[in-house]
Amino acid sequence: MTTIGHLINGQLVTEQTRSQNVFNPATGEISKQLDLASAKTVEQAIAAAQNAFPAWRNTPPLKRARIMFRFKELLEQHADKICQLIGEEHGKISHDAMGELQRGIENVEYACGAPELLKGEHSKNVGPNIDSWSEFQPLGVVAGITPFNFPVMVPLWMFPMAIVCGNCFVLKPSERDPSSTLYIAQLLQEAGLPDGVMNVVNGDKEAVDALLHDDRVKAVSFVGSTPIAEYIYRTASANGKRCQALGGAKNHAIVMPDADMDNAVNQLLGAAFGSSGERCMALSVAVAVGDAAGDVLVGKMKEAMQKLKVGPCTDSGNDFGPVITRQHQEKVVGYINSAEQQGATIVVDGRHPNVPGHENGFFVGGTLIDHVTPEMTSYQEEIFGPVLQVIRVGTMQEAMDLIDAHEYGNGTCIFTRDGEAARYFSDNIQVGMVGINIPLPVPVAYHSFGGWKRSLFGDLHAYGPDAVRFYTKRKTVTQRWPSAGVREGAEFSMPTMK
Amino acid sequence: MTTIGHLINGQLVTEQTRSQNVFNPATGEISKQLDLASAKTVEQAIAAAQNAFPAWRNTPPLKRARIMFRFKELLEQHADKICQLIGEEHGKISHDAMGELQRGIENVEYACGAPELLKGEHSKNVGPNIDSWSEFQPLGVVAGITPFNFPVMVPLWMFPMAIVCGNCFVLKPSERDPSSTLYIAQLLQEAGLPDGVMNVVNGDKEAVDALLHDDRVKAVSFVGSTPIAEYIYRTASANGKRCQALGGAKNHAIVMPDADMDNAVNQLLGAAFGSSGERCMALSVAVAVGDAAGDVLVGKMKEAMQKLKVGPCTDSGNDFGPVITRQHQEKVVGYINSAEQQGATIVVDGRHPNVPGHENGFFVGGTLIDHVTPEMTSYQEEIFGPVLQVIRVGTMQEAMDLIDAHEYGNGTCIFTRDGEAARYFSDNIQVGMVGINIPLPVPVAYHSFGGWKRSLFGDLHAYGPDAVRFYTKRKTVTQRWPSAGVREGAEFSMPTMK
Amino acid sequence: MTTIGHLINGQLVTEQTRSQNVFNPATGEISKQLDLASAKTVEQAIAAAQNAFPAWRNTPPLKRARIMFRFKELLEQHADKICQLIGEEHGKISHDAMGELQRGIENVEYACGAPELLKGEHSKNVGPNIDSWSEFQPLGVVAGITPFNFPVMVPLWMFPMAIVCGNCFVLKPSERDPSSTLYIAQLLQEAGLPDGVMNVVNGDKEAVDALLHDDRVKAVSFVGSTPIAEYIYRTASANGKRCQALGGAKNHAIVMPDADMDNAVNQLLGAAFGSSGERCMALSVAVAVGDAAGDVLVGKMKEAMQKLKVGPCTDSGNDFGPVITRQHQEKVVGYINSAEQQGATIVVDGRHPNVPGHENGFFVGGTLIDHVTPEMTSYQEEIFGPVLQVIRVGTMQEAMDLIDAHEYGNGTCIFTRDGEAARYFSDNIQVGMVGINIPLPVPVAYHSFGGWKRSLFGDLHAYGPDAVRFYTKRKTVTQRWPSAGVREGAEFSMPTMK
Amino acid sequence: MTTIGHLINGQLVTEQTRSQNVFNPATGEISKQLDLASAKTVEQAIAAAQNAFPAWRNTPPLKRARIMFRFKELLEQHADKICQLIGEEHGKISHDAMGELQRGIENVEYACGAPELLKGEHSKNVGPNIDSWSEFQPLGVVAGITPFNFPVMVPLWMFPMAIVCGNCFVLKPSERDPSSTLYIAQLLQEAGLPDGVMNVVNGDKEAVDALLHDDRVKAVSFVGSTPIAEYIYRTASANGKRCQALGGAKNHAIVMPDADMDNAVNQLLGAAFGSSGERCMALSVAVAVGDAAGDVLVGKMKEAMQKLKVGPCTDSGNDFGPVITRQHQEKVVGYINSAEQQGATIVVDGRHPNVPGHENGFFVGGTLIDHVTPEMTSYQEEIFGPVLQVIRVGTMQEAMDLIDAHEYGNGTCIFTRDGEAARYFSDNIQVGMVGINIPLPVPVAYHSFGGWKRSLFGDLHAYGPDAVRFYTKRKTVTQRWPSAGVREGAEFSMPTMK
Repeated sequence: MTTIGHLINGQLVTEQTRSQNVFNPATGEISKQLDLASAKTVEQAIAAAQNAFPAWRNTPPLKRARIMFRFKELLEQHADKICQLIGEEHGKISHDAMGELQRGIENVEYACGAPELLKGEHSKNVGPNIDSWSEFQPLGVVAGITPFNFPVMVPLWMFPMAIVCGNCFVLKPSERDPSSTLYIAQLLQEAGLPDGVMNVVNGDKEAVDALLHDDRVKAVSFVGSTPIAEYIYRTASANGKRCQALGGAKNHAIVMPDADMDNAVNQLLGAAFGSSGERCMALSVAVAVGDAAGDVLVGKMKEAMQKLKVGPCTDSGNDFGPVITRQHQEKVVGYINSAEQQGATIVVDGRHPNVPGHENGFFVGGTLIDHVTPEMTSYQEEIFGPVLQVIRVGTMQEAMDLIDAHEYGNGTCIFTRDGEAARYFSDNIQVGMVGINIPLPVPVAYHSFGGWKRSLFGDLHAYGPDAVRFYTKRKTVTQRWPSAGVREGAEFSMPTMK
Repeated sequence: MTTIGHLINGQLVTEQTRSQNVFNPATGEISKQLDLASAKTVEQAIAAAQNAFPAWRNTPPLKRARIMFRFKELLEQHADKICQLIGEEHGKISHDAMGELQRGIENVEYACGAPELLKGEHSKNVGPNIDSWSEFQPLGVVAGITPFNFPVMVPLWMFPMAIVCGNCFVLKPSERDPSSTLYIAQLLQEAGLPDGVMNVVNGDKEAVDALLHDDRVKAVSFVGSTPIAEYIYRTASANGKRCQALGGAKNHAIVMPDADMDNAVNQLLGAAFGSSGERCMALSVAVAVGDAAGDVLVGKMKEAMQKLKVGPCTDSGNDFGPVITRQHQEKVVGYINSAEQQGATIVVDGRHPNVPGHENGFFVGGTLIDHVTPEMTSYQEEIFGPVLQVIRVGTMQEAMDLIDAHEYGNGTCIFTRDGEAARYFSDNIQVGMVGINIPLPVPVAYHSFGGWKRSLFGDLHAYGPDAVRFYTKRKTVTQRWPSAGVREGAEFSMPTMK
Repeated sequence: MTTIGHLINGQLVTEQTRSQNVFNPATGEISKQLDLASAKTVEQAIAAAQNAFPAWRNTPPLKRARIMFRFKELLEQHADKICQLIGEEHGKISHDAMGELQRGIENVEYACGAPELLKGEHSKNVGPNIDSWSEFQPLGVVAGITPFNFPVMVPLWMFPMAIVCGNCFVLKPSERDPSSTLYIAQLLQEAGLPDGVMNVVNGDKEAVDALLHDDRVKAVSFVGSTPIAEYIYRTASANGKRCQALGGAKNHAIVMPDADMDNAVNQLLGAAFGSSGERCMALSVAVAVGDAAGDVLVGKMKEAMQKLKVGPCTDSGNDFGPVITRQHQEKVVGYINSAEQQGATIVVDGRHPNVPGHENGFFVGGTLIDHVTPEMTSYQEEIFGPVLQVIRVGTMQEAMDLIDAHEYGNGTCIFTRDGEAARYFSDNIQVGMVGINIPLPVPVAYHSFGGWKRSLFGDLHAYGPDAVRFYTKRKTVTQRWPSAGVREGAEFSMPTMK
Repeated sequence: MTTIGHLINGQLVTEQTRSQNVFNPATGEISKQLDLASAKTVEQAIAAAQNAFPAWRNTPPLKRARIMFRFKELLEQHADKICQLIGEEHGKISHDAMGELQRGIENVEYACGAPELLKGEHSKNVGPNIDSWSEFQPLGVVAGITPFNFPVMVPLWMFPMAIVCGNCFVLKPSERDPSSTLYIAQLLQEAGLPDGVMNVVNGDKEAVDALLHDDRVKAVSFVGSTPIAEYIYRTASANGKRCQALGGAKNHAIVMPDADMDNAVNQLLGAAFGSSGERCMALSVAVAVGDAAGDVLVGKMKEAMQKLKVGPCTDSGNDFGPVITRQHQEKVVGYINSAEQQGATIVVDGRHPNVPGHENGFFVGGTLIDHVTPEMTSYQEEIFGPVLQVIRVGTMQEAMDLIDAHEYGNGTCIFTRDGEAARYFSDNIQVGMVGINIPLPVPVAYHSFGGWKRSLFGDLHAYGPDAVRFYTKRKTVTQRWPSAGVREGAEFSMPTMK
């Protein structure tokens, strides 16, 4: 059985001390072994990065960017292979994996603009004959810790921009589906990156803690659940590191009575069930304003969900695949059970999906729950599964109050055709990413991704313009040349001790 | 005796529970009493700010900026009064206080540009007929905690920009010299700021901790010593607040053999002894490259220091005044003693300054110490007094290694006329603010202030462009209008004609 | 009788060769004489500007900006006087003059941000150890030629930004109402501007041509009618000057059936009749989509117009005043006559306004014309009077085609509450300034003003960010320091001829 | 013999009415025929572009950029072929052609950043609940007219950025060496560009005039000689088109006595003789400050020039090739003759180069002329050949006055190691592109290219950030939603549930 190792200083290595199973979630079977890095191995990766830093920092941004151009080409050439690796370990259907990869590539494309993005500000004559300018210098070694749900996209949010800014990188991917992540790191190496600039260590908490406590690591980017995000942020901050830690979500869509309802249903379908709902931007709660809107929404949604197909990634006709683990499957089903017990109506029930030939796969079918209330467990916590819950309220303000009362503030959306409603909503809602008739308002790569409240710890958002600032430190130079010297000819007789 | 209170919701209040003496450092006498805020009083200030927030956030940036225009006028009109208050409690000579005020006003001027600075990024067609843009929304209530050495300038680094971005502010000034700070807050009120947007609480650790632990406070800006900065940063971060905490410094100037030496000496004089060296950007170490340069430097410096005049702020002919407290005076003298004991040469000795009529004032004279080495206590720690130490090294690289080995990385400078030396230095030195023939490279208000290493905790620097980002949170909106609606005439029959 | 002269090199001068009458349009009487500058006088102004340039260009932007801060204060202090001068010569009611002044002051406020706006772009390592940056340097002497309808605001679009960028300015205001313009120039002088940086020459075509043909004038900003704009642009361009020339307009509002009609009527009232319609952004054509919308619009408009009050500026209860000259009054009435003759319906007729005590004033009352068609003369040409014409079309696309077919493309507006209609309109309409439920979409001072098609000749729009680029020339510096020199100690024995 | 045609609407076409010879300048032989477009053919190209515009403008910038990513790949893949085509018709040695191509590709790389570069500015609450933002919309059909000396690079300055901004393009390349230009246009087509977005017409003045007089062409970019640039600029401007027209140059290097002279000589060698001096940034005048510097410079230069190799592009060991035509060869030799006659010293004489086997080629050898004075014809006019002239002056100020007195202001350079001299020079010299120890200060692609004085007609420089502004028109939208509508429940009864 294949053992997945680490990429350190341009070499694939394994430690062979501790390991962990990697599953195929569509079959429930163990497919590979993952070598778990010890603190010592992590330190080797950090050392390799530290060692590569001086030369890499001095490489002109244009040259650094050109490696990203080449990296983009390689990602496109090897797209099928990448999506296959995602599918085998994550379970994502190929069209969805392709979408993930495409979104990731957009971040590489953005990184190609480094020479423009790294420009500092130049001021002539801040005083008489005094000039001042800012430079955005790389930090040194920076680390990324990434989740299972986007094994390619989320790492691509981080390392291309960090590296193109002149940093060296140590990535610790998810231990659930590490192969695609490792593979794209190898492609970056192939694109011409010098050894040591990009390193991957697979592992668990030991590896994470090694990264958090090593003084050579200057910044940490994290995406995962809120409790871990909070731990990462506190630990990294206490250790003097720059940190951005993205956590959980509970994303609501408000459905106004004037919404284009067919469009709303169509959009919600993908946003709620795509990737089995295992997205931090998954739309998991629909808030209908008025019972009339609620009835139409639930009716149309129920009908549309008849056509949903769940199954293995090997059949591209499926809409979504299994969830990531047996435990997670049970947890999702548990939330549906709890909603039922607490009085909600299970309109479409995905607890017993029929996936012939994959009876041991970790599948949950698309589930629609109506008449959910804020007190229910299934509302208060993040389910991270293919479950859409409907809440009914009387007014748009009630809907907004509901959203603002939730601990998370990642994404949200309104379906309406009214300009005023859209503007009021986007202005006032306490959520970082807002969609207007867009249920998954993931910012494009040239804007930045970040939730509010307990969905993100840190000052700066992920990728886009904020990432440039996150992965660089500002240096401000002020310059005056004190006397005319060679220009006036008076000092031809230097040396200059007067 | 006057009791200095708090500014809460537009009203001056005192609590009269605990208080502390405020001294005139030039005479050593107690001049005023400072009311120390309890946690409860701090909470009232926070509540006032929170209450003022919704209306203030919705006030157009242009209107917010106009209050800053008016504030600038008032600061200029009342400059003498402000400088007098600074002098009485801090001891700073009037021309120096005026310089501090002027630097502070520059931050108000920058804040007047809020409408420009708050522009978000607008992208048409991120997808077909989909637009996306970013908004930089205020955080809510934010706090500032400021040091004694710039009772006017450092608060002005913070609250004008925070407020003009739409936030409400609670400021805790230094307990040593609170009057000028309180006074400028009252001027801002007079400029038309709505009650509650700007609040001042005087106090000690109880007040600080109340700010650090209140959930309504979304961000904390701090300037002070490194141990406290680290405490503030860790506590604020652990409590989910955004934080920037600026700490101590040990700023070196490299004096190259080709330097314009008369200019260098002239510059160092002000940079080392101005404001009694109680500046986080004070130039406290001169590193001479080559003994020849060292000898010339020390010789010229010694001569120039003959003319230095130390005395009370009431005589504007003085160059600098007393240090802030009796304890601090003793500490500075202790550092000079230690250098002498550890083998350095006291070239000019300021331990026993003669200030007739002010024998009880907290004065230390300008002191020059030669042949300092890196092992000496006086080199390793921040003295924060009118003491310039000279170290001699053989090469520029040695000088740079020395700087990079120090725990602080606030400011630094090189004196040279060689373009290559200047560029190599500014590129590679691990310090956030770099001067080329500029000994106090404090960035102008439209750039940002921040050291590296243990001189600053946080991602973003103080004032300037970074402050805009620090005092706002990014919201990204993505918008699509789903069907043609009224445009295509399908809904001509809507009953909208009123 | 007062003779209005010129401001040259800080001095008010008159030539007393040729002069022209200045009228009070509310009474029809001659109130002052205007001295008309010969080419020689214009050349003196240019020479003064040229002479002042070297020192002004080297004045730090922050210091230049501070004069603008002071200028803003003076404009506010003398607002009543300025508005009185506008009223006496232009006829504008005081609240309208105050609005004009306020809009002008916003441009001064924007100019206060010069240190931020003039920042260049700084790139480290465009090649190994090669840096490059851009500087935006002033052009030298630049000229402005401004129209009668905004004697204060339009000059303030130009000279504050030009001057704060480091240029010296020669302004030729309208010969109809020159006093307020000259007065604000004097206030700028009072604000501390060095002599010669700002100059005003009053005059006619001789003065204009002198400016257009003098090689020392590097750029010309013009606002006026399209034929003159075109002449100015061609002549200036042929003479190698940078030029932006803003011309005429025919601004349409589309009124959709779903519009908030009371709001639309209320908005249109001010936009069509304010300042007697003598604004290049006046809303002069309402395009009703559907006859139902048309009927409601005309009905409500007719009713609302009953309350319109036309009269002299001395009565602040009036809504608008006279037009600028007897000839212009006759021209406006002629357009109304032609519309009537060509078949349109005069719903409200302003051809014979009753202004007791001002029978000789140049008044035209608010006029509403329905059933206008594209062939009519009154539609094809710019009326520049208090006349609103209504066209009725069947669809929004027809309305947009109408707008796009017109030779002008200055401003336009849509009244709707439908997000999709608004977005489609703003995206596709061939007009430079677009309002959504905003009938006078004049960009705020921190954006830029400019029409499309034959409403503006030139690449860059007026004021705001574009003005910074217009009033500066880009210089790009690329720098490498070739050998280590003093840093490595090898070349201590300079001079360097090897 | 091959006939070179036009690329119109994705098709290669020829007209076969008029044609012109294309030469191999290394042999002097006719190698191909160039079909000369009539006005009618040009109009077909414009029509194709106009037709392609609506769909292309609506294509998301990210998709437009992706074609540029692919175009870059194709340019790299076919680099040898491109360089061969350049060599055959221009005569440039392959390493030089590769350098040209590489510089061109950098502009394609910059164009890949279109989504970032096209961002508008978004302002919330310019008034209460009023938002405003700017959009940078494409112009429509734009044209480029390019010179022989960079048949690949200069076109790549223009069309990638124009096209990625959403415009459609008609390019008229040089008639001397059109093949490489046409070939890269075909590669862009292959990269996936829709038909009609990019068109190439080959031709002479008839084609140029057709472009200048067609109303559908909204902007013209030109690079060539100053008289033609001026004609293009005047004609295009008079016809209401946006225009930037780059003309001639006379680029001086100041050689200071403290310069690193070996480096200076080495740099000057390439800058003066590379590409036979047929570059608008060629360094054609060296101004030595002091006779000592002059003697060293001329001595070292003479020595270094012994190794210069001139010959056909087929031998990559050559340093440079022939000039473009027989006429041009004679003109260059004529300038050398005139200098000799007017009293200058021909130090190295290239008038009779020995290129065995290529006796009919248009070769001129590297020529060094000393003791040139400002009155000489060879100094006053642009030679555009491999001729370096040396002028000797007494002071740096004299050198600068000389540069500023010349009609051109394209590029310039100073060789020094003194920071003050470099800063004074770059600040004050009236030249648009300034090098400090960089003899060819061509800005990198993410800055902008442009000379001052008679080297450029127009407001905005070529490529880089200025090109984004040049190839787009600003639209400013101001938006208010007037009443609460669906949000407040007043319109709940709307019949919108579909």
